[in-house]
Amino acid sequence: MPVNLKTDCSQLAVIEGVKLSAVAAGIKDWHRNDMVLIELIEGSTVAAVFTQNAFCAAPVIVGREHLGNNIRALIINAGNANAGTGDQGLADARRSCEWVAEALSIQASQVLPFSTGVISEPLPMAPIQHGINLASKNLHADAWFDAAKGIMTTDIEPKAYSVTRKLGDQNISITGISKGSGMIHPNMATMLAYIATDAEIDQPLLQACLADVVDDSFNAVTVDGDTSTNDACVLMATGTSGLSLDQSSPYWSEFYAMLLDVAQWLAKALARDGEGATKFLSINVKGGAKKAECQAVAKSIAHSPLVKTAFYASDPNLGRLLMAIGNADVSHLDPNGVSIALDDLAVLDCGGPSPDYSEEQAQKIMDQSEISLNIDLGRGNFEATVWTCDFSHDYVKINAEYRT
Amino acid sequence: MPVNLKTDCSQLAVIEGVKLSAVAAGIKDWHRNDMVLIELIEGSTVAAVFTQNAFCAAPVIVGREHLGNNIRALIINAGNANAGTGDQGLADARRSCEWVAEALSIQASQVLPFSTGVISEPLPMAPIQHGINLASKNLHADAWFDAAKGIMTTDIEPKAYSVTRKLGDQNISITGISKGSGMIHPNMATMLAYIATDAEIDQPLLQACLADVVDDSFNAVTVDGDTSTNDACVLMATGTSGLSLDQSSPYWSEFYAMLLDVAQWLAKALARDGEGATKFLSINVKGGAKKAECQAVAKSIAHSPLVKTAFYASDPNLGRLLMAIGNADVSHLDPNGVSIALDDLAVLDCGGPSPDYSEEQAQKIMDQSEISLNIDLGRGNFEATVWTCDFSHDYVKINAEYRT
Repeated sequence: MPVNLKTDCSQLAVIEGVKLSAVAAGIKDWHRNDMVLIELIEGSTVAAVFTQNAFCAAPVIVGREHLGNNIRALIINAGNANAGTGDQGLADARRSCEWVAEALSIQASQVLPFSTGVISEPLPMAPIQHGINLASKNLHADAWFDAAKGIMTTDIEPKAYSVTRKLGDQNISITGISKGSGMIHPNMATMLAYIATDAEIDQPLLQACLADVVDDSFNAVTVDGDTSTNDACVLMATGTSGLSLDQSSPYWSEFYAMLLDVAQWLAKALARDGEGATKFLSINVKGGAKKAECQAVAKSIAHSPLVKTAFYASDPNLGRLLMAIGNADVSHLDPNGVSIALDDLAVLDCGGPSPDYSEEQAQKIMDQSEISLNIDLGRGNFEATVWTCDFSHDYVKINAEYRT
Repeated sequence: MPVNLKTDCSQLAVIEGVKLSAVAAGIKDWHRNDMVLIELIEGSTVAAVFTQNAFCAAPVIVGREHLGNNIRALIINAGNANAGTGDQGLADARRSCEWVAEALSIQASQVLPFSTGVISEPLPMAPIQHGINLASKNLHADAWFDAAKGIMTTDIEPKAYSVTRKLGDQNISITGISKGSGMIHPNMATMLAYIATDAEIDQPLLQACLADVVDDSFNAVTVDGDTSTNDACVLMATGTSGLSLDQSSPYWSEFYAMLLDVAQWLAKALARDGEGATKFLSINVKGGAKKAECQAVAKSIAHSPLVKTAFYASDPNLGRLLMAIGNADVSHLDPNGVSIALDDLAVLDCGGPSPDYSEEQAQKIMDQSEISLNIDLGRGNFEATVWTCDFSHDYVKINAEYRT
């Protein structure tokens, strides 16, 4: 079950200039919504980042082509990833954009396509066409929660979150949705996130800002260390609030903090709903000589099956943490500079057992559903955080029995 | 249960100049042999490679110091890793060498110490002293199988293997033992391997040769992608056969092949006895522009929990393989050059589904206990192989319940 994750749909803010629709296209033989269409008002700017996986899916290739254009719509299907599908897959992704363009009277090059689901099976085009027709007749501004549910695959909880704040005289809102329950389960999942604001921001700044925010949110989450062929995160700015923002604006830093808040909530939601998760872990590494080495240590811990099974078992197993820290790609790490705390409980002080450590207190912390692991490398002023979940019997069960 | 692994103790060759002893020192409260002493005849040469983990154990530090000397003995204990033990641990490792030196009338600097077991607990010195006394009175040339059992921790099967061949007029033997059941389970295990030959080889060549062999054997095995604080592999040459070998010798390449054979058998045994293993996987990657990229692709597959759970479930899940290949650190990999076969069954031809593929045949192969995954990157002439096992319910069970 997801760890302390519940989307409050009454809290979601409408973003003027964004309309959404979730429909049951019937991509697979299931009875649920599996297609989402998002329409943007003319003049909106759109930024996006995509998977780094070399085997990227057809919609990712088409999305990268279209991104430079004046984007007016996003079409997202669950149930089929349109990945590993060669030239036919590319043609299918382009055809989907054409159908959306016809329905909304825009150009196909103004549409970004996204798919998530089974790899290496052809996209079923009749349901796609049917779904697009249906969705284009049902667009509403207050359908964010429906959209969050419509992009789910093996997710247990829908993931949607808003922040609204007064910047000067103007209320500015940011609303986002995400899906993904491992960082990847390539048969039926992918990490996708869509975030929109009513601020006005030019496209180059929007893209730069998205890259920074993703680095400290979605790129800081891992469930199993794998990266999907279809991952994407999109940031849309409609400008409908009338407030125009750039980096010299007095409200820029506050806006950036709001955006980071939304992105981090959505990113952490992925780990909270990680496959088989029973615990949510924040791994905070400070004292690094650079940020990259803090990230390397945090990810070495977050990717270690031995550490993750120890957290599942609520076993305060210091040896596994030392092993994972020592395995990180950090040049000339001095073990005698390293300190570790579980929440506030000192475990290791400068490479040696802490005099304050007690197994009983450690056990109490390990029994919690949310645990912070605080590591100080003792060699600089940089820091980084990675969020993950534990590694349970159910992870193997879910992934071993997935297609059966 | 180990996958097709059975040590044939009648097959093991004595190495003249090597005597071994396995005893129950009582490091932990168990009733089994947990200490092994190996004595080498004067004039032997010894090479060793150790863990790259920054948190390396005290015996690894002492072993690195001593390696340049004229090594005459190895002392190995199971049950306690003497890692994360600070200055006391270093003093304890040195004291163990002194006790061995007294018992065998050699110098402490001529002893290499090894430990495997629980991290962050002090080495119990009374049992260590008792064990050394006992072991030094019981040294035999034909105790290789006992030694293989004496260094085990959570291993299910002992691992020992010999090759004997006539090189010119001379019979030359190589005998080795190894232990480890994940590449690591830091509480009670570590990868250790000890290989001896009666050929005469000078130390610099022995060390260079060991580094090459380890790269194609122990470094090509992974269970969970983690590296212990205590890993070590030692190669000993007694010279007692009278045959002196160097790289200009007509028998060098044959000797090297024998050594690689022993090292690969012992390395593969670790994956066959991997924690919770039900299948043994050979991941062969060819067609790389360099060896490092072939290794990167093979390890990306071998480390992916999603791929490993699919093999556990006997699910011919192409999507997960594509994902893992695409995630490897290979610059500008063209998916359209990549081909994949399961054993001899073509699955992907140059980036597209193979016309010869049948799910039925794939299912038959996935049901086997040994499976080859053959990948051609289609961009060069280099190749690499990695061996691993699948990822089962029992892996989580073993590692979640370890200390309880």
